[in-house]
Amino acid sequence: MEIAFKPYKKTFDYSYTYGMFPTVELINSRPETVIKVLISSQFKSDSSSLNIFELCKDKNIKTEINDKLFNRISEKDNCYVIGVFEKYECKLINDEPHICLVNPSNMGNLGTMIRTLAGFGLNDLAIISPGVDIFDPKVIRASMGSLFKINFRYYNDFSDYQMEFKNHKIYTFMLDGAISLKEVNHSKDELFTLVFGNEATGLDSSFSKIGTSVIIKHTDRIDSLNLTIAAGIAMYEFCNII
Amino acid sequence: MEIAFKPYKKTFDYSYTYGMFPTVELINSRPETVIKVLISSQFKSDSSSLNIFELCKDKNIKTEINDKLFNRISEKDNCYVIGVFEKYECKLINDEPHICLVNPSNMGNLGTMIRTLAGFGLNDLAIISPGVDIFDPKVIRASMGSLFKINFRYYNDFSDYQMEFKNHKIYTFMLDGAISLKEVNHSKDELFTLVFGNEATGLDSSFSKIGTSVIIKHTDRIDSLNLTIAAGIAMYEFCNII
Repeated sequence: MEIAFKPYKKTFDYSYTYGMFPTVELINSRPETVIKVLISSQFKSDSSSLNIFELCKDKNIKTEINDKLFNRISEKDNCYVIGVFEKYECKLINDEPHICLVNPSNMGNLGTMIRTLAGFGLNDLAIISPGVDIFDPKVIRASMGSLFKINFRYYNDFSDYQMEFKNHKIYTFMLDGAISLKEVNHSKDELFTLVFGNEATGLDSSFSKIGTSVIIKHTDRIDSLNLTIAAGIAMYEFCNII
Repeated sequence: MEIAFKPYKKTFDYSYTYGMFPTVELINSRPETVIKVLISSQFKSDSSSLNIFELCKDKNIKTEINDKLFNRISEKDNCYVIGVFEKYECKLINDEPHICLVNPSNMGNLGTMIRTLAGFGLNDLAIISPGVDIFDPKVIRASMGSLFKINFRYYNDFSDYQMEFKNHKIYTFMLDGAISLKEVNHSKDELFTLVFGNEATGLDSSFSKIGTSVIIKHTDRIDSLNLTIAAGIAMYEFCNII
């Protein structure tokens, strides 16, 4: 693949991980996608941390010390390692529970939700377009690299998603949901999809006819919970991690 | 008070709310602190929205249309209303449950946590210094103005806080907590304080000897949950909003 070492754009066939932590997650979880790892000449490995050169050698991944390229694509001062990787596609697993985000518009929020879903043992994320670009380095950074551990797929419409996964019981999270999250009784073996709307607008009223609509009750001192907080609470309740 | 209309600094005795929503929350919750409300000449009131001029008149608050001042302190293009208010001090209520944040370092996170605590019916926030400036406009914006509805107070040490509130049962949230959040059985009338550490470092080990240490279990696919997510889940579990 021809890499024009330029700041990331959505149209690129490749993207970047900034910093050691997400780059190591990339290398460990998706080694086949890694094109190369750029290392700043100012990078100092300390004995306590893992040796990035050895890790790459183990996985047969090229490393390059080239400050000119590095500085051209680096966005933050305190970044000494950048992974360059080819974008990839995933399939969602049919017999696993899913998270579905309808039109997510904030990159930091998407990354945080990916981190939360990996944390609660979920692996499969559907995104209904339009939604932010999951390969944007800002999403990857906010996910702390956990993006590379999950499956995701974009769908044009919720109905396309639903056609493909007919056995999933749908729970839509809405401010006028029919039942409170504390009242939801889902059986342990139930296949579920938790559906969340956009940061500003939530799910539109058409979603109240799909599956079970759920509200996370809060006081009237706020208009709504922050999306990432609501999604985190819902995942915590549905996924019994012991 | 003499206002030098300049971009916000921590050392100022006053601060700003950017945008209609937090400014209205300020006016409604803390009218006595408002110095004036600046309105951009480009502001268009639409009939569906509340009339900011009337609201200010009702509360005896000065409004001023002055684009020169406005542009000097405005930070975003799509902001047409700025509240200018005098900083104030609060006391925490002794017979209410509390949230305690030890060394919070991210303004957006602090604001999000304030919004969550107001949403779950909590009113009292202790902050252990050093911590970010709660009056920074970035905190206010992330809180969606709910900062003005709660009480907060800074303490130099956790022990200072604890000396003042001896009847609160302390729950410290830590990655090596002794019991899982799902196992916590707190009685409905119990006075509690939920304690959370800094974004990067969490609570240091000295906190495991204070009160009951609690872990929110997650898989080993992530290092930790995001602080705001963990705090949101804990508040949800402790505060039964029905």
